[in-house]
Amino acid sequence: MGRVIADISMSLDGFVAGPDDGPGDLPIGRGGERLHRWMFELASWRAQVGKDGGGDRDGGGQNSGGEDGGGQDSASAGAVQNGVASDLMEEYFRRSGAILIGRRMFDHGEPVWGDEPPFRVPVFVLTHRPRAAEAKRGGTSWNFVLDGVASAVAQATAAAGERDVAVMGGGQVISACLAAGLLDELRLHLVPILLGGGVRLFADSADPAVGLEQTRVVSSPGVTHLFYTVRRPTA
Amino acid sequence: MGRVIADISMSLDGFVAGPDDGPGDLPIGRGGERLHRWMFELASWRAQVGKDGGGDRDGGGQNSGGEDGGGQDSASAGAVQNGVASDLMEEYFRRSGAILIGRRMFDHGEPVWGDEPPFRVPVFVLTHRPRAAEAKRGGTSWNFVLDGVASAVAQATAAAGERDVAVMGGGQVISACLAAGLLDELRLHLVPILLGGGVRLFADSADPAVGLEQTRVVSSPGVTHLFYTVRRPTA
Repeated sequence: MGRVIADISMSLDGFVAGPDDGPGDLPIGRGGERLHRWMFELASWRAQVGKDGGGDRDGGGQNSGGEDGGGQDSASAGAVQNGVASDLMEEYFRRSGAILIGRRMFDHGEPVWGDEPPFRVPVFVLTHRPRAAEAKRGGTSWNFVLDGVASAVAQATAAAGERDVAVMGGGQVISACLAAGLLDELRLHLVPILLGGGVRLFADSADPAVGLEQTRVVSSPGVTHLFYTVRRPTA
Repeated sequence: MGRVIADISMSLDGFVAGPDDGPGDLPIGRGGERLHRWMFELASWRAQVGKDGGGDRDGGGQNSGGEDGGGQDSASAGAVQNGVASDLMEEYFRRSGAILIGRRMFDHGEPVWGDEPPFRVPVFVLTHRPRAAEAKRGGTSWNFVLDGVASAVAQATAAAGERDVAVMGGGQVISACLAAGLLDELRLHLVPILLGGGVRLFADSADPAVGLEQTRVVSSPGVTHLFYTVRRPTA
């Protein structure tokens, strides 16, 4: 069975969307697009969404700290480390057999993603609004889950088979998974900007009993990728 | 002239002190002591406060990303990297010619620091309560600043001479310095714990116009050290 992995970009002041987020002009809030710039320029992202080119913006992606929590699993020559962030995203897409997102993220994304969404696997949408499942071109399907986050994770896990479940956000869905002991891994892309408001990933009510083990840190000039293994409190 | 450098430990959910902080039993709030464990075990910290031994807990401190924002300035052999975090703290103490702290941190610390505080340089305390300056043993002095954070930074800068000013906290003092364009560098020690409440370093009112450039990332299993150059908005 695969793992359940949440992955999201967060500003240094803790926000995963800027102020005044909503459908329309500001899908991720004021300034929120700055959270995702690093990703849109990666070769792996551009390949996934069907664009040519791209490439690690700075050529400086760098892997620091191995799965053992202290080793070094990157070569020391600068050139070899080019594209580490891109490789991480490529692996993330390749290993994901199903995706879980929230209703707000779905509403924001659906018009943009079009007839051939970039996911190419079943996507489960946590929502309160009944809607029929729908197959899209290229392998993506929309599947609407009405009975809560645990059910959504269970359905996505079943669909993913041996592959992982990618919990892509928004922040509320990831927080709910974390609080419910449903995550195996949390990947934060920490972006050195201040948004000054919006949607926090961690509200004032995070559970101090959730155990996080920092397993890997990869830095590029515009972002630091932080990997944490979650010790599920209830599993 | 030296630089003005803020340095503080923050939980993954953004807190620099846990819930219910106050003088007495919980100087840094419930669970807040977990923020500083990584530091108390460093050889450099123990040397500064006059204890023997110590050492990088995990032997895995690892430097990723140079001042150029993308290079690698650590050797690749594991043994060479032992104590990177310790070396960073040693350099931080050595380069600090004056220290700036808030009144709450001072109140919490004064009984603990005793007659020979570990700072060994002039310490400026931002406060509203008049109190006479006081010289302690070993080079530390207490100097109370009543007329605001800009004045405190100016006085500390004058006292530091060619060396740096270390803004050690708490969070409110660092936030005030950041907002007022008084910081040259921000160093965050990001600890993989959730505190679930307490004092946030970044409230909902951080200024999105503050420019941060990520210049260095050093990871150890229990903490990631993040260095940001601040582009002072008003300087």
